[in-house]
Amino acid sequence: MAFPHPLDQLSVAESDIARQVILEAHGGSIGLIFRSIALEEPPKDELIKFLELENAGRLTFETPRPTRVAKVSYDIVRDDRSHEYTESFVDVQSATEVSRRIVDEVHQAALTTNEFREFTEACLASRLYQKAIAEFEIPDGFRVQIDPWPYGSDSVVTPRYTQGLCFAQDIRSGNEDSNHYGYPLPLIPVLDTYRKEIVRVDRLATGGKEDGLSHGTHSRNVLDLCAPAEYLPELLSRPLRASIKPLSIIQPEGASFQVNNNLVKWQKWISHWLQSSVLYRLSISEMTVPYGDPRPPFHRKQAFDFGDAGAGLIKYFDAILTEPDGTSSVSKNVVCLHEQDNGIGWKHTNFRTQRAVFDLAGGITLETRATGIVRVVNIDPGKRSPWGNVVSGGALTQNHQHLFCVRIDPAVDGYANTIIVEGSLPIPISKELNPFGNGYEVRQRPIKMSQSFDASPTTNLIVKMMNPSKQNPISGNPVAYKFIPSASQLLLAHPDSIMAKRAQFAQHHVWVTKYKEGELWAGGEFTNQSKKETGGVADAVARADNVENTDVVVLHTPVEIRQIHLRPADFFSTNPAIDVPGENNNASLLAPGSDLCCESGGVQKSPEAHLQGKGQI
Amino acid sequence: MAFPHPLDQLSVAESDIARQVILEAHGGSIGLIFRSIALEEPPKDELIKFLELENAGRLTFETPRPTRVAKVSYDIVRDDRSHEYTESFVDVQSATEVSRRIVDEVHQAALTTNEFREFTEACLASRLYQKAIAEFEIPDGFRVQIDPWPYGSDSVVTPRYTQGLCFAQDIRSGNEDSNHYGYPLPLIPVLDTYRKEIVRVDRLATGGKEDGLSHGTHSRNVLDLCAPAEYLPELLSRPLRASIKPLSIIQPEGASFQVNNNLVKWQKWISHWLQSSVLYRLSISEMTVPYGDPRPPFHRKQAFDFGDAGAGLIKYFDAILTEPDGTSSVSKNVVCLHEQDNGIGWKHTNFRTQRAVFDLAGGITLETRATGIVRVVNIDPGKRSPWGNVVSGGALTQNHQHLFCVRIDPAVDGYANTIIVEGSLPIPISKELNPFGNGYEVRQRPIKMSQSFDASPTTNLIVKMMNPSKQNPISGNPVAYKFIPSASQLLLAHPDSIMAKRAQFAQHHVWVTKYKEGELWAGGEFTNQSKKETGGVADAVARADNVENTDVVVLHTPVEIRQIHLRPADFFSTNPAIDVPGENNNASLLAPGSDLCCESGGVQKSPEAHLQGKGQI
Repeated sequence: MAFPHPLDQLSVAESDIARQVILEAHGGSIGLIFRSIALEEPPKDELIKFLELENAGRLTFETPRPTRVAKVSYDIVRDDRSHEYTESFVDVQSATEVSRRIVDEVHQAALTTNEFREFTEACLASRLYQKAIAEFEIPDGFRVQIDPWPYGSDSVVTPRYTQGLCFAQDIRSGNEDSNHYGYPLPLIPVLDTYRKEIVRVDRLATGGKEDGLSHGTHSRNVLDLCAPAEYLPELLSRPLRASIKPLSIIQPEGASFQVNNNLVKWQKWISHWLQSSVLYRLSISEMTVPYGDPRPPFHRKQAFDFGDAGAGLIKYFDAILTEPDGTSSVSKNVVCLHEQDNGIGWKHTNFRTQRAVFDLAGGITLETRATGIVRVVNIDPGKRSPWGNVVSGGALTQNHQHLFCVRIDPAVDGYANTIIVEGSLPIPISKELNPFGNGYEVRQRPIKMSQSFDASPTTNLIVKMMNPSKQNPISGNPVAYKFIPSASQLLLAHPDSIMAKRAQFAQHHVWVTKYKEGELWAGGEFTNQSKKETGGVADAVARADNVENTDVVVLHTPVEIRQIHLRPADFFSTNPAIDVPGENNNASLLAPGSDLCCESGGVQKSPEAHLQGKGQI
Repeated sequence: MAFPHPLDQLSVAESDIARQVILEAHGGSIGLIFRSIALEEPPKDELIKFLELENAGRLTFETPRPTRVAKVSYDIVRDDRSHEYTESFVDVQSATEVSRRIVDEVHQAALTTNEFREFTEACLASRLYQKAIAEFEIPDGFRVQIDPWPYGSDSVVTPRYTQGLCFAQDIRSGNEDSNHYGYPLPLIPVLDTYRKEIVRVDRLATGGKEDGLSHGTHSRNVLDLCAPAEYLPELLSRPLRASIKPLSIIQPEGASFQVNNNLVKWQKWISHWLQSSVLYRLSISEMTVPYGDPRPPFHRKQAFDFGDAGAGLIKYFDAILTEPDGTSSVSKNVVCLHEQDNGIGWKHTNFRTQRAVFDLAGGITLETRATGIVRVVNIDPGKRSPWGNVVSGGALTQNHQHLFCVRIDPAVDGYANTIIVEGSLPIPISKELNPFGNGYEVRQRPIKMSQSFDASPTTNLIVKMMNPSKQNPISGNPVAYKFIPSASQLLLAHPDSIMAKRAQFAQHHVWVTKYKEGELWAGGEFTNQSKKETGGVADAVARADNVENTDVVVLHTPVEIRQIHLRPADFFSTNPAIDVPGENNNASLLAPGSDLCCESGGVQKSPEAHLQGKGQI
């Protein structure tokens, strides 16, 4: 073993060194609250040198390795209980603090699980909250459950706030997992996060179309309308169906990939979370969830899952979590890697002999899904709302969007790449070129300066990430990887709204920027309570950098459920999957009692590797 | 057993009766060529009566059943060797011909496999072809292979024609499956199909950008440029990879569906090829493949896979194929039904207890894929073409589109349905309605008259198939199923071209028509050599029928690779999958040598049923 790979996450020992360095630098632990301690990846040029030697199999004991640096994020708590959010960079080999930055107080760090934990405690202790909750008739056998949430943002400048969505939970069964989302309560306590004080309890509108933005139309026994919405088998009022027979996916010889810390080898891909001869980095860079209910305080309902809640920090198979005192704990298995059957890879049947060949070919598919439960708010009896749909008694789901941003840092056979926009366009009828009108034109345009643009299904717009210096020997075109950007709906909030200003990235489908060290987040590093996107894609594009034949980055904003297919374009000289064995899959069984079978010749299952996780993929 | 189901395909015995009736009606077998003998489905109103009794479990021996009718398609061969294409309808219970229609000679029946078979024979016997092929230097050990193809269409009125794409095949290995697509030949013999005579040999352009539409630039030894493009394992020049371990999908207790002839029961779906409480019929109605190379004769290169080649006739698990003499043979397993893992159906983790529940919910996904091999044409040494890409030595793939049309005949909790178009639209900032600008509006519009319209991702356009008479008790909205039409590129050919006139259906994303008996084909019944679409969706829309709260049909034209998700909308009162057992899947195994696992709580595989086939799905 000896050295860690430069991209291996920090070990607990390295994390402890970083903590110790910071504690000593501040003269003891008093007044420091640690938020995270994580690997600061080496500068790209240093890392590339290492990776090129690694890919060439030329690593030795003497190979110079990039310095191992920890980024330590923490608060310095001042006497007046205000916090100074600080980022220090620590060389964990020499145990020295290399640099320090006190973040401008206009920015708020992401919420920590610890801050979430403290919310309910502060809430229950608050007289303001107790008085507000006493206005409601909570049935016997129910208790109040509070889901802490990012505060969102409006035009008022506020200190660090957290808000709580309140529900009642039926605990008469004694089951801790009884679904409280069947019983929403129309109030939101607001916490001053640092002072641990509930400063306000917002009241929620519960009316329908006819009530406009007003609230106060509900009754004291607002939960009488509500009904259980249980999903646990033991809490269901009907039996589970018995008609599903097991469908098992078995790999008797184990998986075809190997994992060594974070280094993944699968078939002909070698990737450290996907660093390869195609990509330097592939990641989900941000997701914002704006809600379309204009009734205050719902206008603040907008989550940034990465920037607000720190999902972006979880980017390893096992996540190292940082406690407030700077000590580390390991959270196992936050990301799942598996192979899965992807149906027929390719197939051709020679009609003369009826012989079929099934196989796999080399692309990358990113799929985003929203599979969760909806958080509801109250709606009065018999009313319907333009702002959502009634899904259970007295419970309204509010209209909202899920806008993911995928960040692609290409390395197509080298690091200097050009982004090409390609479209298929009709051409006029002419005797010389298109006498019968069936002809059409494939037009290409290189992106010269950083910019944003939108998907265009009417012209079948394709984004090609091309290496202009490497020619495909067969086609004569430069090697490339390509994808078709999804023409999904962009942010619906008004351009002048705070929601829109905070999520510039959600207002165009594709962004092309020059690579800049540390610029990883589409919506900027600090989204929590932000008034506008800062350091995100819009700022990156505004630099008006040359992006031709250089280290370029592409970002793409789709909504769920979307698949994005990265496909080779003039990249290979032959089908890269041509050497995949194509025997019949012996596990394909006939359905008993019928003579159903799959296609003659059997079905070859074509595997693909999947990375599922929150954060970098 | 007793009675066949009204939707069961004809048995061989029933087919034989129909043949005999037609033979006798024409006074013996002389001069008749049979094309197909297939079930003519009962009129919808008759069938619905039967299905409603069936769904209510009230079928008895006495229940009146729709007459079993065979549609017999055949040619009457006249003395001058011209053909009269005829369709007769035969009651196979009483063995009587009920009606007969001689199809106008402007229409051509779909090509039969028999006509394809006869092509090569007629070609090899032709002096015209022999002379043309002799102009080329075919290397020793190679033989010519001819792929018969639909003739396509241009502005000239022609008799029934078929054309052949010519290639050379390397048979030095003795392997019949050696890939001839590596070696295209620049000529296309044209067959007068009925007279079995090659009437012309078209010469193909082989030039690049600089050569415009002209041909004749190639050399006599045009194959010298070409290289093998083998895909069979035994013909590859390199070994197969050994790194893929088996991934087996096992159903030790068999599948969860039952099949009785064509009746499929899966979970809570009962369908006869998908007739259910949601849909009367779901089918792929047509696919056209127009090529964008304007160099003659490539302007005729446009296939209609269903209308030209009869893929639409294959709509059963086992297909009954009709020989030219009217006898039947069974082609086994042309359609495959299987269950497959669809990943996480839905998932919610209670962050308080870390318990996760995984499950499945009730939608229908249609996926179209193009996974085949490309047919290439020649390109001269060193040239590149605006009309395609060089994929192998001397071999050009021409730009083309694949435009599928899916036909949805909804039956959402009843047969009288209304199509609703729903969009999500921004609204202005106003003090009364949208003070903070986050609000947006969901606007609905019913389709009152038959019409076409296009997908609109910028407004997130959704097509809802709604039953206005049935209200969802929870949401208060009518029950519906919905899908988001794919905003894929439509037909690129010029609107004045023959290609465009033949494929009206490929020029809009969505078509809404009134149900009409027998109107099943988006591009019309007769596409082979057609000059324009006849009896397709454009004609159906032109009737300007009322389509509100009636028997309505929706057609959607996407391109591959697209998934179309049919999803319940206000259809259910509870999650229809809530009763699916959610135990851990014991087959999920850890990767050996790593501590990778899936998410805590294990992964529940959510099955879905898949129908794969050519034709009706």
